[in-house]
Amino acid sequence: MDISIERNILEANDSVANELRQIFAQNKVLVLNLISSPGSGKTSLLERTLADLRNELKMGVIEGDCQTDNDARRVAATGAKAVQINTDGGCHLDSKMIKKVISDFDLADLDILFIENVGNLVCPVEFDCGEDAKIAILSVTEGDDKPEKYPRLFQLAHAMVINKVDLLDYVDFDVNKASKFGKALNKDIEIFEVSCRNNKGLENWYTWLRKQAALKKK
Amino acid sequence: MDISIERNILEANDSVANELRQIFAQNKVLVLNLISSPGSGKTSLLERTLADLRNELKMGVIEGDCQTDNDARRVAATGAKAVQINTDGGCHLDSKMIKKVISDFDLADLDILFIENVGNLVCPVEFDCGEDAKIAILSVTEGDDKPEKYPRLFQLAHAMVINKVDLLDYVDFDVNKASKFGKALNKDIEIFEVSCRNNKGLENWYTWLRKQAALKKK
Repeated sequence: MDISIERNILEANDSVANELRQIFAQNKVLVLNLISSPGSGKTSLLERTLADLRNELKMGVIEGDCQTDNDARRVAATGAKAVQINTDGGCHLDSKMIKKVISDFDLADLDILFIENVGNLVCPVEFDCGEDAKIAILSVTEGDDKPEKYPRLFQLAHAMVINKVDLLDYVDFDVNKASKFGKALNKDIEIFEVSCRNNKGLENWYTWLRKQAALKKK
Repeated sequence: MDISIERNILEANDSVANELRQIFAQNKVLVLNLISSPGSGKTSLLERTLADLRNELKMGVIEGDCQTDNDARRVAATGAKAVQINTDGGCHLDSKMIKKVISDFDLADLDILFIENVGNLVCPVEFDCGEDAKIAILSVTEGDDKPEKYPRLFQLAHAMVINKVDLLDYVDFDVNKASKFGKALNKDIEIFEVSCRNNKGLENWYTWLRKQAALKKK
């Protein structure tokens, strides 16, 4: 794409994202933008998180999808409020799309608003949605080289969730190697190793969420 | 993005893609554009294919990556000619990038030129690279709902390779359901179930490749 057009698009996006960030701050709601490849388990991680923390935290979800509202229905089945954004083939969510749907939530009543982005390890990274933090999700079946090959997300993310660790025995994935790549790109990145099938590591993820949500309330 | 800008970009891309298609036709080389999520196993499938068919077919590879030349080095280790395109964070290959590198190959001496696109189930689909066919690769760890959720690729692809079937016992993936979604989007799509770990199904994929390459030589 022409660089000046790209710059204009990103600047317009950033401007709306900054508006959103103020609104989220006024309402003291923690906003987390979940980014990963298709099939890394973003929705499964949300389903578990929403179900397991429902009595402690008030949570809502914006679901971004190219097509279908399957994920929004899965998330809504936990009892959490879920609002669908269908990008009609588009490869990422942007701040304008988020702005259109936030009035569907009672933000002042939420502790955490999750944004589940379109499954794509590249494009969503550049489009700020006003979030407090991007969360990178990487499943062990994708290979431990992904932070090295798709560095931008891992440079910017506050946390990296290594998902599907129940499959580690059956794939060639070196958790230390993936973590080392992640830390080399971003020394402050928090790393969680989890399985939504056997619950491994979820408690560490929940502890971090509780802490971030509490910090936002201060 | 503004729709008229998007249209102009795609039209410019199509025009170069059509030039490429003529060049490929003159040289009777079959060109296959491999598209999938990050970590679906495009490179592993290529490594196996290049090694197993090296005595039958002359093959080259254009490797698209956001960063690193890891995949090009893996492919070159099989003895095949591999040329790297580094998109520097870009989310897809386009026809102009392909045009820049084709002089690195002796096209008349090739039976098949594989293009391994950037790992991304969305953006590469719209950018014709002059290929004869797009090949969709889907690993069983990504979930059987992917054709339904990311339909565009499966509508356009000539073949869908369901990869990593050695992991079927450990994940919730219904091959029939994924195949049914694929066929509903595209009744002519060829479906292969393969494992690059235990060799299952590779022979069917090779038979198809041999046939397509032979048709192109006519």
